[in-house]
Amino acid sequence: MSGSFPMNGGDGIYSYTKNSEYQREASNNVKEMIDMTIVEKLDVKHLTFASRSIHLADLGCSVGPNTFIAMQNVMAAMEKKYYAQSLPSEDLEFQVFFNDHISNDFNTLFASLPVDRKYFGVGVPGSFYDRLFPSSSLHFVHSSYALHWLSKVPEKLLDKNSSTWNKGKIHYTGASDEVMKAYAAQFESDMENFLDARAKEIVVGGMMVLIMQSLPDNIDHSKTPTGVIFKFVEDGLMDMVNAGIISEPQVDMFNLPVYSASAKEMTRLIESNGCFSIEKMELIDPRSKDAPINAQAVIMHVRAAMEGVIVKHFGRDIVDDLFEHISQKCMEDFHLMESSNMKGTQLFIVLKRK
Amino acid sequence: MSGSFPMNGGDGIYSYTKNSEYQREASNNVKEMIDMTIVEKLDVKHLTFASRSIHLADLGCSVGPNTFIAMQNVMAAMEKKYYAQSLPSEDLEFQVFFNDHISNDFNTLFASLPVDRKYFGVGVPGSFYDRLFPSSSLHFVHSSYALHWLSKVPEKLLDKNSSTWNKGKIHYTGASDEVMKAYAAQFESDMENFLDARAKEIVVGGMMVLIMQSLPDNIDHSKTPTGVIFKFVEDGLMDMVNAGIISEPQVDMFNLPVYSASAKEMTRLIESNGCFSIEKMELIDPRSKDAPINAQAVIMHVRAAMEGVIVKHFGRDIVDDLFEHISQKCMEDFHLMESSNMKGTQLFIVLKRK
Repeated sequence: MSGSFPMNGGDGIYSYTKNSEYQREASNNVKEMIDMTIVEKLDVKHLTFASRSIHLADLGCSVGPNTFIAMQNVMAAMEKKYYAQSLPSEDLEFQVFFNDHISNDFNTLFASLPVDRKYFGVGVPGSFYDRLFPSSSLHFVHSSYALHWLSKVPEKLLDKNSSTWNKGKIHYTGASDEVMKAYAAQFESDMENFLDARAKEIVVGGMMVLIMQSLPDNIDHSKTPTGVIFKFVEDGLMDMVNAGIISEPQVDMFNLPVYSASAKEMTRLIESNGCFSIEKMELIDPRSKDAPINAQAVIMHVRAAMEGVIVKHFGRDIVDDLFEHISQKCMEDFHLMESSNMKGTQLFIVLKRK
Repeated sequence: MSGSFPMNGGDGIYSYTKNSEYQREASNNVKEMIDMTIVEKLDVKHLTFASRSIHLADLGCSVGPNTFIAMQNVMAAMEKKYYAQSLPSEDLEFQVFFNDHISNDFNTLFASLPVDRKYFGVGVPGSFYDRLFPSSSLHFVHSSYALHWLSKVPEKLLDKNSSTWNKGKIHYTGASDEVMKAYAAQFESDMENFLDARAKEIVVGGMMVLIMQSLPDNIDHSKTPTGVIFKFVEDGLMDMVNAGIISEPQVDMFNLPVYSASAKEMTRLIESNGCFSIEKMELIDPRSKDAPINAQAVIMHVRAAMEGVIVKHFGRDIVDDLFEHISQKCMEDFHLMESSNMKGTQLFIVLKRK
């Protein structure tokens, strides 16, 4: 099981387009931080020394609208920086590369590109764990809530005879240490590939902002919102096993290719890559306000993001039924969600190409 | 009526993917000519002086596979040129921008990108009559069988009270001089926009190859294969009027936004733009072999290319019925197709950015 797990396409009721306010809030939350970083740390004069064209990329952009908002913010901050440095910004040209898996719904993405945009918009299909761009061709890279998707389920988990056989579980949440280690190893290998590729593609002095789902120190994954949700999904699937709709071995073979990295892990991997300086590394809260969260909205968000990976394994037929079960679990045990630890579950990283 | 008229998407029975061999043959036909032009006239040393990354664009690429074949040929010819000049070509990187209307089926295009490709593939949504790329960012532009699509139907044709009201006709084929002039004026304005945009986007020394449907001197459009096909479509529509399925005013309001330019017109427009030198301008035959053409295949090609523009005006419901009628006309009068003038109905142009 390897490959791509795109968000739900189109603009229907279960689409990512209509169910990504939480990710948008997380993005808006870091807007000021990105602004400040660009103003403080990006040497725009150096970047546009050779050409007046600035190349930005959003990696794992999905179908919008979050990606348009995020890229717009970055461009506005850059123009501010030009202005602050009394550099001419009128003739600047921005080319924005929107990247996601080949199976991402690019038709929807392109159809929803803002009509009044002042940049050249481009779609780049492919995994960001591979090379996507020519050498030294990007000035600014952004990736929000995408790097928690592993390139694949760790292979060891699918070996029935190994200690990493993840029986009755769909993730490392609540699983054995061996399973946890297999996930961590997969993340490490993926992140090495990611950093290697970006080191080649980003110009010297160029910047990369990563916003990632994260695990704060001394918190068990089962106590985070993601951990709680994964438990709902797991329980929903086991309900369907008990109802005889799917088989237990099917669930044993299913594992979510998702990993929440810690700040320590990321620091180690970036330092080991060696091509980037860490300008900022901060654990922050994904939500800005203490507004109550809503069980129905949570389920819709989970479905928009995870339906793809579930359909790939179990087929389309069970999906409505499964989300009924998950929804029920979520309603019943919503207190687990409300009491979960959201604090510091988002990692904000700014890197500069040395 | 303005906007985009994409080829049929997907890979079904009526898709462009499955019904574009004629366009592919036309493309293959000029392969040698493109090869030779690159070897003779492209100064690759100059192009990659600043960077080892070469940017190519195919404008009006549709959904493949023709675009992949054409771009692959161009890259192979460039590498040959490097080799011929004893320049290193190993570390060259190609970035290929596949452009078509926003409503083009980019999902199918991306899904069919060759897996073993040695270039970075990118999709660019938008009309090539507008700017699509940053200034001086392209080294080689290719466009095959796309520039006969006007940006819109000439507005004058829709004014019931003017002498350009195109009653009972769907094109300038067989229409009045005024209608013909309105089409020519629209083409002129579109081509001016096209050349202006490309002049800004192509680097000095960069090359543009245009392969266009064309009208040879002293041939009436009604005697060309395109003219004959348009007559089949017109007759098919009038049959449906007579059968009471669509109304006559609906047909009066429908005009195909398609124009076959002459070599003389193109020469004048390029010279008036002033930014390009004409390295080659040749009328050639779209078909290389004298193999008999097949009525059924012709109809499938017409449908793959024109269903979009027909559906936009008449709705999806009538399409199957209409193509039955067109098919019948085509079978009955296929001798018109066979005796039509195919010679010199393709214009091959090579331009170099001054």
